[in-house]
Formats: sequence, C-alpha cells, structure tokens
Amino acid sequence: MTRPAVEVLTFGESMVSFRSDGPLVQGGRQTVRLAGAESNVAIGLSRLGHTVAWAGRVGDDTFGRLVLRELRAEGVDTSCAVVDGMRPTGLMFVEQRSADLTRVEYRRAGSAGSAIGKDDVAEALRTAPHILHVTGITPALSGTAAEAVSWAVESARAAGALVSFDVNFRGRLWSRDQARESLAPLARRATLVVASDDELDLVATGDEDAAVAHLLDEGVQQVAVKRGPAGASVHTRAGRADAPAVPVTAIDPIGAGDAFSAGYLSGVLDGLEPPECLARAVATGAFAVSSRGDWEGAPTRADLDLLASHTPGATLR
Amino acid sequence: MTRPAVEVLTFGESMVSFRSDGPLVQGGRQTVRLAGAESNVAIGLSRLGHTVAWAGRVGDDTFGRLVLRELRAEGVDTSCAVVDGMRPTGLMFVEQRSADLTRVEYRRAGSAGSAIGKDDVAEALRTAPHILHVTGITPALSGTAAEAVSWAVESARAAGALVSFDVNFRGRLWSRDQARESLAPLARRATLVVASDDELDLVATGDEDAAVAHLLDEGVQQVAVKRGPAGASVHTRAGRADAPAVPVTAIDPIGAGDAFSAGYLSGVLDGLEPPECLARAVATGAFAVSSRGDWEGAPTRADLDLLASHTPGATLR
Amino acid sequence: MTRPAVEVLTFGESMVSFRSDGPLVQGGRQTVRLAGAESNVAIGLSRLGHTVAWAGRVGDDTFGRLVLRELRAEGVDTSCAVVDGMRPTGLMFVEQRSADLTRVEYRRAGSAGSAIGKDDVAEALRTAPHILHVTGITPALSGTAAEAVSWAVESARAAGALVSFDVNFRGRLWSRDQARESLAPLARRATLVVASDDELDLVATGDEDAAVAHLLDEGVQQVAVKRGPAGASVHTRAGRADAPAVPVTAIDPIGAGDAFSAGYLSGVLDGLEPPECLARAVATGAFAVSSRGDWEGAPTRADLDLLASHTPGATLR
Amino acid sequence: MTRPAVEVLTFGESMVSFRSDGPLVQGGRQTVRLAGAESNVAIGLSRLGHTVAWAGRVGDDTFGRLVLRELRAEGVDTSCAVVDGMRPTGLMFVEQRSADLTRVEYRRAGSAGSAIGKDDVAEALRTAPHILHVTGITPALSGTAAEAVSWAVESARAAGALVSFDVNFRGRLWSRDQARESLAPLARRATLVVASDDELDLVATGDEDAAVAHLLDEGVQQVAVKRGPAGASVHTRAGRADAPAVPVTAIDPIGAGDAFSAGYLSGVLDGLEPPECLARAVATGAFAVSSRGDWEGAPTRADLDLLASHTPGATLR
Amino acid sequence: MTRPAVEVLTFGESMVSFRSDGPLVQGGRQTVRLAGAESNVAIGLSRLGHTVAWAGRVGDDTFGRLVLRELRAEGVDTSCAVVDGMRPTGLMFVEQRSADLTRVEYRRAGSAGSAIGKDDVAEALRTAPHILHVTGITPALSGTAAEAVSWAVESARAAGALVSFDVNFRGRLWSRDQARESLAPLARRATLVVASDDELDLVATGDEDAAVAHLLDEGVQQVAVKRGPAGASVHTRAGRADAPAVPVTAIDPIGAGDAFSAGYLSGVLDGLEPPECLARAVATGAFAVSSRGDWEGAPTRADLDLLASHTPGATLR
Amino acid sequence: MTRPAVEVLTFGESMVSFRSDGPLVQGGRQTVRLAGAESNVAIGLSRLGHTVAWAGRVGDDTFGRLVLRELRAEGVDTSCAVVDGMRPTGLMFVEQRSADLTRVEYRRAGSAGSAIGKDDVAEALRTAPHILHVTGITPALSGTAAEAVSWAVESARAAGALVSFDVNFRGRLWSRDQARESLAPLARRATLVVASDDELDLVATGDEDAAVAHLLDEGVQQVAVKRGPAGASVHTRAGRADAPAVPVTAIDPIGAGDAFSAGYLSGVLDGLEPPECLARAVATGAFAVSSRGDWEGAPTRADLDLLASHTPGATLR
Repeated sequence: MTRPAVEVLTFGESMVSFRSDGPLVQGGRQTVRLAGAESNVAIGLSRLGHTVAWAGRVGDDTFGRLVLRELRAEGVDTSCAVVDGMRPTGLMFVEQRSADLTRVEYRRAGSAGSAIGKDDVAEALRTAPHILHVTGITPALSGTAAEAVSWAVESARAAGALVSFDVNFRGRLWSRDQARESLAPLARRATLVVASDDELDLVATGDEDAAVAHLLDEGVQQVAVKRGPAGASVHTRAGRADAPAVPVTAIDPIGAGDAFSAGYLSGVLDGLEPPECLARAVATGAFAVSSRGDWEGAPTRADLDLLASHTPGATLR
Repeated sequence: MTRPAVEVLTFGESMVSFRSDGPLVQGGRQTVRLAGAESNVAIGLSRLGHTVAWAGRVGDDTFGRLVLRELRAEGVDTSCAVVDGMRPTGLMFVEQRSADLTRVEYRRAGSAGSAIGKDDVAEALRTAPHILHVTGITPALSGTAAEAVSWAVESARAAGALVSFDVNFRGRLWSRDQARESLAPLARRATLVVASDDELDLVATGDEDAAVAHLLDEGVQQVAVKRGPAGASVHTRAGRADAPAVPVTAIDPIGAGDAFSAGYLSGVLDGLEPPECLARAVATGAFAVSSRGDWEGAPTRADLDLLASHTPGATLR
Repeated sequence: MTRPAVEVLTFGESMVSFRSDGPLVQGGRQTVRLAGAESNVAIGLSRLGHTVAWAGRVGDDTFGRLVLRELRAEGVDTSCAVVDGMRPTGLMFVEQRSADLTRVEYRRAGSAGSAIGKDDVAEALRTAPHILHVTGITPALSGTAAEAVSWAVESARAAGALVSFDVNFRGRLWSRDQARESLAPLARRATLVVASDDELDLVATGDEDAAVAHLLDEGVQQVAVKRGPAGASVHTRAGRADAPAVPVTAIDPIGAGDAFSAGYLSGVLDGLEPPECLARAVATGAFAVSSRGDWEGAPTRADLDLLASHTPGATLR
Repeated sequence: MTRPAVEVLTFGESMVSFRSDGPLVQGGRQTVRLAGAESNVAIGLSRLGHTVAWAGRVGDDTFGRLVLRELRAEGVDTSCAVVDGMRPTGLMFVEQRSADLTRVEYRRAGSAGSAIGKDDVAEALRTAPHILHVTGITPALSGTAAEAVSWAVESARAAGALVSFDVNFRGRLWSRDQARESLAPLARRATLVVASDDELDLVATGDEDAAVAHLLDEGVQQVAVKRGPAGASVHTRAGRADAPAVPVTAIDPIGAGDAFSAGYLSGVLDGLEPPECLARAVATGAFAVSSRGDWEGAPTRADLDLLASHTPGATLR
Repeated sequence: MTRPAVEVLTFGESMVSFRSDGPLVQGGRQTVRLAGAESNVAIGLSRLGHTVAWAGRVGDDTFGRLVLRELRAEGVDTSCAVVDGMRPTGLMFVEQRSADLTRVEYRRAGSAGSAIGKDDVAEALRTAPHILHVTGITPALSGTAAEAVSWAVESARAAGALVSFDVNFRGRLWSRDQARESLAPLARRATLVVASDDELDLVATGDEDAAVAHLLDEGVQQVAVKRGPAGASVHTRAGRADAPAVPVTAIDPIGAGDAFSAGYLSGVLDGLEPPECLARAVATGAFAVSSRGDWEGAPTRADLDLLASHTPGATLR
Repeated sequence: MTRPAVEVLTFGESMVSFRSDGPLVQGGRQTVRLAGAESNVAIGLSRLGHTVAWAGRVGDDTFGRLVLRELRAEGVDTSCAVVDGMRPTGLMFVEQRSADLTRVEYRRAGSAGSAIGKDDVAEALRTAPHILHVTGITPALSGTAAEAVSWAVESARAAGALVSFDVNFRGRLWSRDQARESLAPLARRATLVVASDDELDLVATGDEDAAVAHLLDEGVQQVAVKRGPAGASVHTRAGRADAPAVPVTAIDPIGAGDAFSAGYLSGVLDGLEPPECLARAVATGAFAVSSRGDWEGAPTRADLDLLASHTPGATLR
C-alpha cells in the first residue's frame, strides 16, 4: 500500500454547474454537476491512471461539499483543498438556447474559489509534483489569485517541476488587454504552453510562427496550439508536428480544451515525444467533444486503446 | 372587455427555488420554480378568481424573467414590477435531507428583491387596491424594504384600503428581538393580522388572549391565528371563532401559511363573515399542505366546491 | 402445447389514460397507460394464472393499438377484440389536484369502446367461458352497449356459465336513478354480484341485509360487499362471512375494486369456498391499493404466497 | 404604467400537444405543451418585445386553461380569447416514429377552437392593431372560422391595418383544390403574403415569378417565399431580395415557419426595409429549427444580437 | 377466430438489456428492455403483419418474464418458449462512452438462453413454419445450442421450409476461425444467406464475387450482402441487384441488421422478387437506424407506405 | 496535513443495486447505486466525520469501478480494496411490488465480493484500526469469506482493537441453523454485538434476557438489540438502557440497521457511554428510515444537531 507521489498538481476555481434541460426561463429540470477547467484536467489525468492533486477554495456549503465529493470520487487528491467558512461556492447556470447558442450565467463574484491565495498554494506545493498545471482563468479571479499563480509558477520552477500553462481566455472575466498584461509573463515562465490559435496573441506578439518562436526563445519548451476541427500542432525547438482532429460526432464542446491538456500531460508523464503527446491530446479532446458533460466522458486507458483499434461508430459486443 | 380594478396589491421578494430530487451533495436533478410568500398569496387569490397585482424587484437575468413569467401565467398583474439592472435575482436551494428535515440554502444577500424601496411601492399603490397585503419577511430584507412596508401601510390606510399583515417570522433573516421591534408597530396598523400561534409574541405581549386583546384594542379588526394540525381561530371584537384543520394527507408544508392568507382574503373580498373567511382559509391551506410545491396546488373555486361536496380520497370519475 | 380453454370472458370499454406528474394546467410530463375496469379484472386474473379473454372495440389509431398491446403483454386473449375504423379510442386524463382530490377529464363520447354491440359479444361468447364478467359501466355507455350486456348475460346463463356482475356505478356517466333502472335487472340475473356498500341500493331495495336477501331470493348465489378500510363480506344462502381489510399503506385507490373482483373470481375458478374467495379478493385488492397504477401492481400467485407468509413491510433479501 | 397599444393581433386555433418520448404505442412518457401556428407567431413577436394579442376559442377544461396560461406567461394579451363552455379544446399527439418520420394524431374535430366566428374576431379587432396576422389553417377549420378570417381581413383593411397572411397549407384538413378556392381570395387582399415555395400555387397561378407578379398586381406589397435549407426571398414591386439559410444544426422543424413570420413582422414593426425584414425572419426561423419545441426556442432581442456577433457553436462564458 | 399458421419460426437467446443514460460508472438511470437478434427479427416481421413464433429458453425470474411479456405485446407467438427453472436469464449492460464508442458488458455465461437444445426446437418446429430463421450467434452459445441450430436447419429443409441464415458474427463470443468452422456448413444448407460484406469470408472463400458464387453453387438461392451506408446487394443465379441506403439521420445502429432481415423475409412472404425484397430490407433497416432502441422503431406497413410517399424529414400533420 | 489513522475498518461484499421505478417486468427506468451492509456502515461513519476504511473484492468491470467510486466519493478509504480480474461484481435488482412488499433478485453467485479471503483482510488490518466491524452476512458468502471473518476477529482482538459484530441474518443465503453454527462463535468473540430481537437466538440460547446474559458472560461488553418501531436497548454488565424509536415518517427501511451500527460506533469513538451511543444509533437509524436509498440519507453531524434542536417536520428557512 505505498502511496504514489503526486504526478500533477493543479489549482483554480471549481464551481457547481446547473444545466437546464430546456429553456431555463420556463423552469423545469436542471442537472447539477462539478465544473472547472483545472478540475477537468485533474479528472482527465486521473482517469488515465495518473496521481493528481487539486487545490483551491470551496465554500462551507452543500455546493462546496459537492465539488470535493466528485473530485474524490474521480480519484483526485483533495487533501490540500481549503473550505472557506466566509465565502460561498461559485455557481454557474448553463442553458442551451439553441443547438448553436449556449448561454452561461454566473454567480461567482466574491466566491470562495476566487479567494485562493499564495498560502493555499504553498501548502499544496509541498507534495512536490512532477508537473504544475495552471490556467489563464485563475489570474482573472482576484488579486490574491493572480499572485498565487505567479508565485506557484516560480516556486515550481525553482523546485524543478515542469510548468504547464493553458491560456484559457475568458471574455466574461476580463478584456483581452487586461488578460495580455497578466498572462504573457506567465506563459514565458512555463515549460509547456497550450493555447487556441486565437489565444496566441495574448501571450506573444506576431502571427502564429512569430509568437511561437518568441515563446521558444523565452525558454518555453513545447507550445501546443489547438485549431478545433482543423486539428492541432505542437512546436518545439526541433520543429513543428501536426495532428488532424479525430472525426467524431460532436455533442458538447465544453471541456474539450481541458481534455486536450490532460491528454498532453499524460503523454509527458509517460515519457512520450511531443508528436505522441499531441496525438493523445487530440484523442482525449475527441472523447470530450463527443460526450455530454464537461468531464464525464473523459477516457480511461482502456477507452483510448479501443478507440485506436476499432472503427469509430462500432459497438463492442 | 372591461378590465377589473385591482382587488389586492401585495409586494415583497420573489426568488427562484431549486428543489433537489435527492441529496444535493450527490448532484442529480433539480426542479426550478418561483418562490416567495407574497407571490404565493397573489397566485392563491388569482386562482380563486380575484384580480391581484404583485410589486417587487427582480434582476435583469433569466431568473428574474422566470419570476415574472410564472406570475403572468397565473394571471397576476406584474405591470408594477421593476427589473433591477444592477442586482441579481435571489435564489434558494431546497433539499429534503429526510422526510422530516428540509434544509434551505439561500443566495439572496444583495439581491434585487431586497432592494425594493418606497418609490417602487408608491407606483404600485396608484392601482388603488381594496386590500394591501404585506408580510413580516420584507422588513427583514433591507432598510429600504422596511421603509417601503411602513410607508405602504400608512398610504393604504390613508387611501381607505384594508391592510392585511402576515407576521411570517423568518429565523434565518433576523432574531426574534429584531423582528419584534420592527413588526409590532406594523401589526398595530393593520386591519387584519395573520399569525401562527408561536408568532403572536412578536406583535403583542402576553399569552394568546392578552396579545389578541391588545391588538384589537389598537384598532386591528380581525386576528387570525394558525395552529397547524390543531386548526385555526379568528378573533374580532365580537368574539372568537374556531375551525378544525381539514384532515388531509400532508405532502409538503411549504406555502400552507400563504394559502391560508389567500383563502382568508378571498373570503373578505367576497363579503364573508370572519368565521366563513376562516373556513375558506383552512380549506386553501389544506390544499397547499396536500400538494407538492409552494403554490402549484392552490385551488380554483371549482376545486373548493369539490372538496366541500365529496368525501376526501375519492376520485371524480 | 395444448391451448387451455378460456376460463373467464369479460368485455367493456378500455381506454388510454394520461396521468399527470404535477398540475396538468402547467403542462409537464404525463404517463400513458391502459385503463378500463373490465381489462383490469382480466389482467388481474391472468397474473394469477387463469386464461382470460377480453372483448371490446378500440379505434384504428395508436391508442387502440396500445390497448391491445398491453392486454397481449399481460397474457389476455384479445382475439375477439374489434378494431373500429370509424370511431376513436376513448381517452382519459387523470390529475391529482392534491393528495386527496383526483380529477379525471374524459374524451370518450362517441368512442369506439362505447359502440360495442351484441354481435361483438356473440363472437366472443363462442369461446364458451366458464365465467362471464360484466360491470355496470358498460350499460351506461350506449344503447348498443346496454343491449350487449343484457344479451350476453342471458346467453351465458343459457350456456351454463357463471355470470359475475360488478355494479361499478359511475356518476360521471349517468344518475343513480338511471343506473338503478338498468342495473337492477342485470344483478338479478347474475350468479355473483360484487358491490360497494353504497352501491347496493342500485340493485335492490332496503338496507344491506334486505337488499342482499332480495338478491339471494332472486337466484343470485353470492353477494360480495366491499366496505373499503372496513373490510368486505360475502353473503350466500348459507350465511355471511366477513374479512377485515389487509392493513397496507394506501398509495393509489384506482383499480382496487377490479382487483377485488379478479381475486374473488380466481378463488371461484380454484374451487374455493366463498369465505376463501373473499380472503383472496381482499388480498388482491390490498395489492392494488398499495401500488401505483390501475393494474400494474396486480399480484402473481407467488406474490400472494409471499404476502401470506411474511410480515408486511419486510424486504425479501 | 401606460399600457402600450396592441401592435399585432392574430387569431386561430391553439391546441394542447402531447409529444411522446418514444413509441406512443408502448405508452411511456409524454410532454404536454401549447401548440398552434398563430400563437407561435404571437409568442415569437412577444419575445422580441412587441405587444401582441391572440384571439380564439378554448374549451372550459384544463387544456383550455393551459393554452391561456402559456400565452399569458409569454406576455401575449389573451383578454379577447373566449372560453367555450360547449366544446372541448383540441388535442394533438405527436410521435417521432423515426428521426425522419413524425406522425401526428388529432382530436380536434368539433373543437372549441374550430368554432371561432365573426363575433369573436370583431371584439378583438377593437384593439385597433397595426397588423392583423392570419393563416390559411383557420379557413379550413369550419364555415364560421372561414367567415371570421374573411371578415377580419376586410375589417382590418378598412381600418388601415396591415394584413399579413401565411398560406400554411395543411393536407390533413383539406385538399389542395379546396384550399386554393378559399385561400387565393384571401392572399389577394393581404399586404404581406408568406408562403413556402410549394404553396405559391395555392394562391396564384404560374411558376414562382408569375405567381408573385400576379399577387403584386393584385395589390399585395410584399411576398416572402420560404425555401427551407435553400433560404428565402422577398418580392416587392421594387424587385427581389434573397437570404441564404443560417447554417444551424437542425433539431426540430416544427414551428420554423411561424418563427419566420414573427421575425418578418417584427422587422416591419421596427420600420425595416424588406431585405432586413427577411434577414430577421431567416434568423428567427433558424432559432426555431435548432431548438426543441414549437415555440420554446423563439429568440429574444438579446439572443438575436448574440447570434449576429458570435461564431455559431460558441459558448458565451 | 381461425388461428393463422405460423409464417416464420425463429429461435435463439433473448436477453434483458440495461441502457445507461450517462456514464454507467457514475450510476444514474438505466432503461430496461428486451434484446436479442432473433427476437428483433420476429418483432420486425410481426409489425409488418406476419405471424411469427419465437422459441428459446428464459430463466424463471423477472427478466425471463419481461422477455416473454414484450414478445407477446408485439404479437409474437411465445407458446414454444421454455422457462428454465435452473438457469438465469442473460443480461447485458449497454453504455455509450461517447457518441462514437458504445461498450457492452454481458452477464450471459451459463444463461438459460444459452442452454437451448434440440428438444426445445423440435417442439417449435411442429408449427410447420414456411420459413425458419436462424443466426450465427446461436451456435456460439453452447454445444447444445449449436446442435439445435444444425438439427433445425436439416429438419426444416426436410419439411420443405425455406431456411434463412444471418451470419451475425459476434467477436465477443468466439474467434473468426472458430466461427468459420461452425457457420460455413450452416450457410451452405440455407435457402437465404444474409451477411455484412465483412462476414462473407466466414461462410465461403475468396472475394465477394467468389464467395457468393460458391454459396450459389452449394444450393443457396439468395445471398443478401449489407454494406452499411454504401447500401446492399442481393445475388441469385439470375444475377445481382443493388439498392442504395436510404439517406436517413442515423440515431442508433443496433438492430439495423435484424430489421434488414425482417424486411427481406417479409418480402419473401409477400411473394416479391429478390430486388423488391432488398428494397424492403433497406427500408426497414433505415427505420431501425433512425430510431432509438433495438426493435422499438420497427415499421408497420403504414409506416413503410408513408416513407415511400413522403419526403423524408416531413411531418404528417 | 497529517493523515489521521483509520478509526474503523470494515469489510464484506458490496454490490451494485438496480432499483426499479415501477414493475420491473414492464421494463422502464432503473436507478443504479452502491449497496452493501458494511459499506453502508462505513459511509455512515464517514458522514459523521470518522476515518473509515473498507476492504473487499470487486470485479474488474464497470460495476466494480462504481463501487469504489462511490466509496471514495463518501470519503471512505478504499486503498485496501482488491480488484479481482477473474470474477464479476455482484448485482442486485430491487423491485417494490407494492408499498409493503419489496422483492430482491440477486446475481451474486460466484461474485468477486464472495471470494474475499484471509490475505485481503490481513493487508487491511495493517492499518491498525481502533474498531473492526464485521457482519453475519460475510460468513455466508463462501468458505474463504467465513475464514476471513474468523481470522480477522481473532487478529483484531490480539491487536487490542474493539470488535463490532452485527448479526445481520440473511435468509436468502443460508438457513437459520447454518447461520447459528457459524455466527454464535463469532458473537462470543466480539466486544459489541448488534442484533434485531429476532436474531438473538442465532447467537445465544434462551429468551432475550438469557441470551444477553450468556453473551455478557462470554466476554461481550455491549449487546445492542433493535426492535424496529418499538425502539432499541443496550445491555452491559452494568444493566440495560432503552431508547424509544424517533417518531419519523418511514420512507425506506433498507439500510436502517447499518445506520444504527454506524451511529453506535460513532458514539463509541467519541467516548460516549452506552446509553448515549444507543441514542445516537436510534437517531441515525431514523434518518435512514426516513430517506430514500440504502445510505444516501445518512446524517452529517450538522444534521444530527438540527434534528436534536428542531421540531421534526420543520423546514429550516
């Protein structure tokens, strides 16, 4: 019963999401679940067999207990999570207005999750993770949250950990200009940067090639760029590799980027080369896109193997 | 197509309620609906064929639209309701921990509903209602809300309207001492006071008889006292009348007090004597207790007639 | 693979019932199922292992197909049922307004089921059943339906079959005076009469004892009287036997009378004495009362045995 | 609190629709909602902020109350609706046999809605609407209904109102020849004619160009032609404008035509030119096609803006 | 009431299938239904108006009763089915991991269904069916099951019945080599062989043309080959006919092959020529693909006519 | 972040339970959840804030993953649980035939859970728990399971742990005589024995007083006897204490005994005297009885406090 060391530590705000079956204005039924970019990545890694810890603050309310309950259920270590007796857990309400327009209303201002600070993270970093994964959402939450991210990145570097940074721009939290000021310095200190193609300008200047070159010059070792249905690329000093998107039936795009990050980091932990990491990232992203829910469809290793060896669309019977 | 004048005006905070099918901490399904003591009374009166207006503030969000949508659906006039662009609609989360223990978590601090003020009410009072109905919840919400209630009661009295006051103490919003200071003066200015037997000490001193006598001395004309399964009474200067509870299968106690008030006021509007008003109040309360939901089971006049003429438990087929 | 002869033939109108989860006026979800007093009896008997045929008319629409599909599923012989290409299947909409008040709206005027006639029944009687079971609902449906019942009763008597008649008064279809005129002659020609205590005056005059004596004088051999929670009795020329109600948790009273009849007839087919038939009738009625649905909870023989040998409330694990 | 004048009046038959989750013949769950072409248009306009009234007859039953409840909920003025104590509300049962074959069974013969007459409409026209909207369904319902439509069109013209006519051919109600005889005269008296490309021959002769020219010669000012996935056109004396269909994920085609009409009329009320009206009509139709339900997905103005300014498929978070 | 002779007899293992709404590992809701390749064919034929009998073994448990109940409901003759008091009914658990990956877990080892033997089938063959339909699943279940299939094929041939054989390879039950050894001899003794294009090598050697020629040489009269979205073909000594796939929206592929067989056999029973049988097979397969469930969407004759005469996607209203 | 030592270790078979919404024979919807007497106790203790570990075997299938997922979610340490690659996870199917008769069908023969053995338990005992809790179900599962229980009891005693034994007779697994032979020796070696009043004769001879005296003579320190609605008692050498049942609305009796054990052991861990332990046991049992599900309604400490300080039936708002 030796307890494996933590392979990946991530932290950020996790919330409780209410998803409406029909128009929310007509009332009706809602489905409640855990939501959060970093916790999605943590679950994605745990499903693939890695040891992961998640840090963050939740309120001392039923919603905070729900967040921790689901993370534990998925095998994510929550022993560093903090229950904040003064602030509520953030909520979000997701409504699909039509097949092509999803609206989200938040109740996250002043939330426990946004009050995360350096001390919370310091405690968590004592687990000495191989990888620290942070996103560009957290610095937008509050001053203490922004400080926690910067501090954690520096501390992890100092401790020899690999730093993974997913740009993850959220237009509802801040402007592109605000984001750029905060995120560009973080990206430059990361080992791995993950970005959508329309997010690269938030962390470096110029077109994709120039921006990537700039990051690699700054010391970033791998830059993974997501292009949705057009696939994805990874850039290293050794050059660029591309992967086409897996042709799946898209059901729900939410969580696809987080699944991509989880797949990529899983490859890194398995010692794969960047193009192989990219292939796994594209596969885990495909699972997320073709399953309902933010993280519920994240694949196990057995799922990955099956997808690789079978024709899509086939039933295993 | 003559539009009937408003018979009853009421105002207060209405919220959106999420009711969990099972343990909320396990996620799962929620049912979303309108909630609010005053809007429950308004719906109860509308179902019985009266013209009712509801005033209050809702946020400029989907939840505020839900509140107004349901009130309109039930035939309640919402033309005086205000959409507050700065504050969110209040939310509540109801979870039945066991058959005998229901927990409620609120997200109502700083809500649009609690920001109601004198001006909102002044606008609504121009409808010249026969009856103004207020509850002891509103003064607990904020200073402006408390002021709005006091001002409305005085204005309605001045305009010759009947003032109905339901004590409705909420221990989650303030202490009994705080409530007493605020509610006792309001009760003394009402024409009709409705209270549970354990609320009388919040509006007058002494045991039930002394408290009621005190209120009648102050000018209150009718004091209705609810005793749950033990029935209810009404006190006037002419004496006391009692009504036993209707022996129904209790399903959901939430909203029973509001249904009682709606039934009583319906009797007043129909020109009934206090004992007949009490009988109707007890019957409408019985419907609420034996139906799921805060207001969904409120009876129409046809329902009332059927209950009177048939054996309970029988199916009309 | 010898095909057993039909033990019981019954006929009447079966409909499709829509049962609302909440207030029907608010829309929402409905559950659709088969409904009909005679088909309830047929299913009750089939569950207990008897061979039963049901005759009647259904429309050439999805609802008619649903009626026949469910009867076939339950092992009831529908080979004599008629699909009426000119008239629709009757519908009913059941709404529980409160725990103690259920409303039913019908769309059965001019239905296929009400157009049943002598010829339909003549065809079915060729199966030479041991027992013919009819109810007092059918004569209320139409002139041809009333004629079909009278004719069937006489034909069955002539063929030596036992005739079972359940009074089953429906106040929504006709008045007590109308019913009396039609039902009293039928009752007098039956071998077994089943009635609620408040239905006896529809088939004979005087109090219970006088009414029963009158029926026995006319040639009826067994008169079973249902008294709800107060139990039931059976009267024969040999005297009266009583059975207390089984103390079960009541869930849904609809279908309890039909289950009672099925249980009684099952006893008759098994050659039991009247008190034993009554005991079985009370037990099958108890199952119906303690299960949701009109017939879904009807017991198998194994269920009956279990109820007899175990403490109610216990789980068999 | 000045009450805005009615911008659009529409009338016709609204029903209650039962939609089956699976094969209806297997029973199971149904979802109940309001249905009706004209009420769909009314809701579409109300969602976009216009004042709309709906006239028509409903039965004095739960279904009639459901129709009025939903219309009120959606902010549609129902003060001219008539409750018909003698006839039931029409019902329809919708079953998706397969992804590409939907069956509908009606119970609308002799319904309250089909009994609408001149007097009902006369009352409603006193609201002096800017626009009267009628469809080609109503003349097929009954003689009085056909008369009501003709009379209303003439009265509205006389009063200076714009007359909008949606051809809306229903093959279950009458033949193309019957429809042509009744609808062609109506179309010629309209200001705006809306038709699918396969409906033009019901209101004028020749191919599309000839038919449109004929209508414009007769005094029609705008002719909008819907071509499903191939987009739509509008013809005026000034020429023709085209709009491609919005490339959305189709979920449920029912109600798309009504949403198109609502969008077009909204443009007219906002003073837009025909090509802009057409663009809005195509957008509102796209919302209907990509949402479940006949009218539930109708867009608000905020939804329209979002669709215009965001990439389809994106989530606003 | 003349009982029609059995047109088709089929036998095999039917199970109870649990289908998960979401990830099964998270618990949640399951839908329970009948499953089984041969019973799917039987239901498909019954829906099209043919008389069909199904033989097989079910356990003496609720699941066995469910299997027989559903078959009876669908009008399939189950009088030859055997209830095996010693073995349980087989279960399967279906989980859609993503839109493109469905997993199935079985609990069928040692099931009643796999214990089917020669005697069970001998009894059933006394119904003297016109057609015997068997699949390549049954020989994989057990030695007695394999023997039962061989014996039945020979007996049916001897009695002059047409033998239909659907290859239906199941990789979870045996290897391709094991299957080849068992299935090739069966195919050679069939009148009609139905196979997917990737199953032909299990019953004959060489490419499609060679394999088919080989089967026709052996005495097979018709060989139907399914190619999924690429359509299907039928080969006879007179040559080959092709049919394109019906362009439907695919919802659920399970059961499509069984529906194809049902449609083909229906054509044979109606005396159609092979190309017409193929056209019907492709149409019934299209219904199965575009409906949820293994057999629930099987078309009636009326459905088939509608599909033929209407544009796909249209609603019949 | 010091990891607390394990306070309680328990082991046994946990299964996956399918609970039917209606009659299982009619198919329909099932709810899937974790079930198992020992895991119910573990969850009950974890909810009350204790550290608990559960040991046992689950299959390498989705159901085994579900069992571990739920236990982790509830904070139960599963690090000693074994995944058995050769045997499936046990299943059970629960169907409420009526309000008073629940049937359970098992698929647990040869399950992974029943293959638990001494080695699995030895590993788990290295956590050095303060209390070992076992039940009389496990010895009935298999020879290795019986051996594991005996060995664990002796090892725990030797290590100074308190041994808790819940008799938990299951008539579906063995006879009373078989049980007596196996359970009586275990009870004599326990520190705490929990039994229903009708189970005492399985562990000692004579009436309740004699049986209890016998156990206390053998060295048992506390004997808790459950009497359902009649309350419970605890016997020690110091005498007997009684507690009445908490008067709650009974919803679902399954799991009540396990909740009782959890409450009692929680009291022991908190250092309470036997009568106080009994009071807590009765309270936790009351929660289980008044909540749906086997363990879902288990109270937290906050729930316990609320029940103590509030009137049952009240809503906390």
